[in-house]
Amino acid sequence: MITIGLDMMGGDFAPIQAVKGVISFLQESPNDTRIFLIGDETSILSELEKNNFNSPNISIVHTSQVIEMHEHPTKALKEKQDSSIAVGFHLLATEKIDAFISAGNTGAMMVGALFSIKTIEGIIRPTIGAYIPREDGSLGLLLDVGLNADCKPENLNQFAMLGSLFASQILKIENPKVGLVNLGEEEGKGNLLAQAAYPILKENAQINFIGNIEGRDVLLNKADVMVCDGFTGNVVLKLAESIYDIVKRRKINDAYFNQFNFEVYGGVPVLGVAKPVIIGHGISGENAFKNMISIACKMVDADFTGKIKTSVL
Amino acid sequence: MITIGLDMMGGDFAPIQAVKGVISFLQESPNDTRIFLIGDETSILSELEKNNFNSPNISIVHTSQVIEMHEHPTKALKEKQDSSIAVGFHLLATEKIDAFISAGNTGAMMVGALFSIKTIEGIIRPTIGAYIPREDGSLGLLLDVGLNADCKPENLNQFAMLGSLFASQILKIENPKVGLVNLGEEEGKGNLLAQAAYPILKENAQINFIGNIEGRDVLLNKADVMVCDGFTGNVVLKLAESIYDIVKRRKINDAYFNQFNFEVYGGVPVLGVAKPVIIGHGISGENAFKNMISIACKMVDADFTGKIKTSVL
Repeated sequence: MITIGLDMMGGDFAPIQAVKGVISFLQESPNDTRIFLIGDETSILSELEKNNFNSPNISIVHTSQVIEMHEHPTKALKEKQDSSIAVGFHLLATEKIDAFISAGNTGAMMVGALFSIKTIEGIIRPTIGAYIPREDGSLGLLLDVGLNADCKPENLNQFAMLGSLFASQILKIENPKVGLVNLGEEEGKGNLLAQAAYPILKENAQINFIGNIEGRDVLLNKADVMVCDGFTGNVVLKLAESIYDIVKRRKINDAYFNQFNFEVYGGVPVLGVAKPVIIGHGISGENAFKNMISIACKMVDADFTGKIKTSVL
Repeated sequence: MITIGLDMMGGDFAPIQAVKGVISFLQESPNDTRIFLIGDETSILSELEKNNFNSPNISIVHTSQVIEMHEHPTKALKEKQDSSIAVGFHLLATEKIDAFISAGNTGAMMVGALFSIKTIEGIIRPTIGAYIPREDGSLGLLLDVGLNADCKPENLNQFAMLGSLFASQILKIENPKVGLVNLGEEEGKGNLLAQAAYPILKENAQINFIGNIEGRDVLLNKADVMVCDGFTGNVVLKLAESIYDIVKRRKINDAYFNQFNFEVYGGVPVLGVAKPVIIGHGISGENAFKNMISIACKMVDADFTGKIKTSVL
């Protein structure tokens, strides 16, 4: 039995969309998952009732506080011990749940992941990535997308390994191609970071390094795992996200650009911490929550964090 | 009389598109411009004849060599003294022409700009930017887009000043808004470079600094001049360029996305060198050449490099 903790108070549409996501997940998936719905019991029960749903696979963990989106992460986590995020991490740290998911305050989720759960030994810095939709319908993984604004070459090497593991184990991409986001294709191109990272990636036998990829390759399936510093990745991700808004505003209905609706993907896990933690987009909807629960289950099932431990040894 | 030197051998469609661009420019513009067509005389004459065009405003400067796209910039410039690019820079350095334009080997153009023409005193590093089409039909300016992969805060500050001058003097944007490309909106966010650049930009009375802009703001007209290191700018630009290819491939016909056809804009000048030098995209077509000639004329007319000298003093 896999147990997943879900913050019901996180995201712009809490707890409505989270409840819908749970229902949608449980209606499709086998019965070996138990989901802890962490949040205000009355609101959760009311939403479950509205949807006329009950299941032995859900348990409500009542919490009386909520960390709002604008709150200071460390301060809020410390002061709001009975918030859904603080309780979630407590359950995860004490092994009551196998994974924790929230679309709430990103900073608080990061602080919780890094300090309640800790980094896997050998991992210099955990990373957070994002799915990148490609024209052929597949998903690429771009990382880091903002957790590590300044990086050292060795960080990029670990992002490449973490991303490759996630792509192969969870996204089921066989021998995922790793590309180094750069300003030119040839070896030797780039800023100091990219120039120094290239030979390290090239020599890393644990990954399938295909070389540099340029900005024009990000939306193609040239590489499955695209590594860069968190500054570049964040700008790239937000630019890609903005394309969807433009497409909708201009009433363009195109199968590919519709995939730029990043809210459907939910969130990508924080890679490198000792237990599965998934941070969702604030605008996560039903599908996003369903996808995040599904990804969390796959991570637990595959002993993903255990595999990271083995591969960094 | 403004004299412009145009490399007729540069670009993927040389000299056909360059000739068309010259004709198109001269048919629309007043007679105070003289254009030196630098390249193989026979080919140029043949194209002019095909178009049944002659004008007292053009003079052919015959050159016997061409620097190809793949050639090593420094080596090629040194060995091919009678190439259109080498001759163009020679004419510019000896004041036979007021500005030089080429859609040829970018590296050779950069080397020529930096070493034959030199940097304006006080400018630490020249920069090259790119136009960014916005939904309201206006053009933004992103810089640097690849010339300076690693930057110091003071570089970004100068890019902001150079970009502002170009936006106000040439693009005729009044009091152009300058944004620092960053991973968050709030002051204090960013990598070390952005964090250090923010206060310098904020205190610079010569620019209209509006603060940080995120990846999602690049395609909006939040800022007219968007500054970042050349690594980030290059990745962003190439990602934006790739959108046009995708849009065409998917047969989407949309007025805004059609503007992502970067080849129509020609090139943005190398800002910070002592004379106007414009490097065009290899795929530059008739309109791109026409636009580049027009921008070069405006730069000469406005004494743009003189204004830079005054503003950095």
